[in-house]
Amino acid sequence: MAPVKVFGSAVFANAARVMACLEEVGVEYEVVEVDYMAKEHKGLKHLARNPFGQIPTFQDGDIMLFESRAIAKYVLRKYAKSAQDDLLREGNPEEAAMVDVWTEVEAHQYLPAMAPIFYECVVYPARLGTTPNKKVVDESLEKLKKVLDVYEAHLSSTKSKYLAGDFFSFADLNHFPFTFHIMTTTHASLFGSYPHVKAWWERVMARPSLKKISAHMEIKA
Amino acid sequence: MAPVKVFGSAVFANAARVMACLEEVGVEYEVVEVDYMAKEHKGLKHLARNPFGQIPTFQDGDIMLFESRAIAKYVLRKYAKSAQDDLLREGNPEEAAMVDVWTEVEAHQYLPAMAPIFYECVVYPARLGTTPNKKVVDESLEKLKKVLDVYEAHLSSTKSKYLAGDFFSFADLNHFPFTFHIMTTTHASLFGSYPHVKAWWERVMARPSLKKISAHMEIKA
Repeated sequence: MAPVKVFGSAVFANAARVMACLEEVGVEYEVVEVDYMAKEHKGLKHLARNPFGQIPTFQDGDIMLFESRAIAKYVLRKYAKSAQDDLLREGNPEEAAMVDVWTEVEAHQYLPAMAPIFYECVVYPARLGTTPNKKVVDESLEKLKKVLDVYEAHLSSTKSKYLAGDFFSFADLNHFPFTFHIMTTTHASLFGSYPHVKAWWERVMARPSLKKISAHMEIKA
Repeated sequence: MAPVKVFGSAVFANAARVMACLEEVGVEYEVVEVDYMAKEHKGLKHLARNPFGQIPTFQDGDIMLFESRAIAKYVLRKYAKSAQDDLLREGNPEEAAMVDVWTEVEAHQYLPAMAPIFYECVVYPARLGTTPNKKVVDESLEKLKKVLDVYEAHLSSTKSKYLAGDFFSFADLNHFPFTFHIMTTTHASLFGSYPHVKAWWERVMARPSLKKISAHMEIKA
């Protein structure tokens, strides 16, 4: 059987999310480059894979999927081979609920606060050669601090190693790509004020899957 | 056993999402009012339920959950009694993937385009007595049209009755609360240009669960 395909390299944070899941469950995959600078993602071929023209898309035989969180869940649901690989815990409604809560928190609280910093300090300097807009970054840092306050209180009060409990889950993995990029900036120092969050992040980054993918994520000019 | 509790009435679109799921699976629930105008959602009691101070939160015995999409999935996963109630289809990775794709599309494409129209034309006029900001609404309508173009093409090319296939799923239900509110405005006419989307919406709104909840959603001064 042909391996599954990820359209878009790990340079794209949302593609890195998908690849991290593939590594977690040990599925071989082929990375098909999509030339963003040449706007290949807005070309007819890519639009047939994802009508919204975004990266990544994913192919498994006859199935073509888009939206990285949906792809990630498909990969985890279909290819997890053991309880240890089961990052969704859908067989246990209470555990799955905690995975979902912190997965949704990532999408609706954490990433909206972090994304402008990612663009201003990582993407635009590399792609456009610009310097970060201080006002945008400062406002986002204030928002991010409020979010991290909640994470710190959660991890400290529950005494859990990971966001959904004492097990590594999709909720943790979901935070990987954008947090990894922020950690390459001077704003990584912010996490020093949140000892439980910092310790959690170190546990997350000790995963072999994430170490492997992170070696391919640098955004270059 | 005490019934489960939803903190926040159906006036809050995200609470309506949760209640629609409870109706779908036939679970009795108690609605606990949260006084938004008195900022009760930012008070200590509510913050203990949801550290981000948002509505709704949900209690099932010892379990307290927040983030409406996570609550909704918990309810569907735990309380679905038959294949017909199974709006997540997690037992079938291919079907579940299509449910997830269109659930994520709602969160990351559809709602971001629709939300400013909802606030400008529904929430602010009722809560603050303002008239809609034409520039904001027009820009959002342009974005929404591009999103609806994709929905129209998807529903028309797949010939499916619903977003994920020929079965009503969480992907469809997820579109209910905000679309319902937009349909109370003059911008409902936009859907007339998208016959497959309009027919889909009529099928969605024929669900007894959604009819029931929609009777309690009006946002008043």
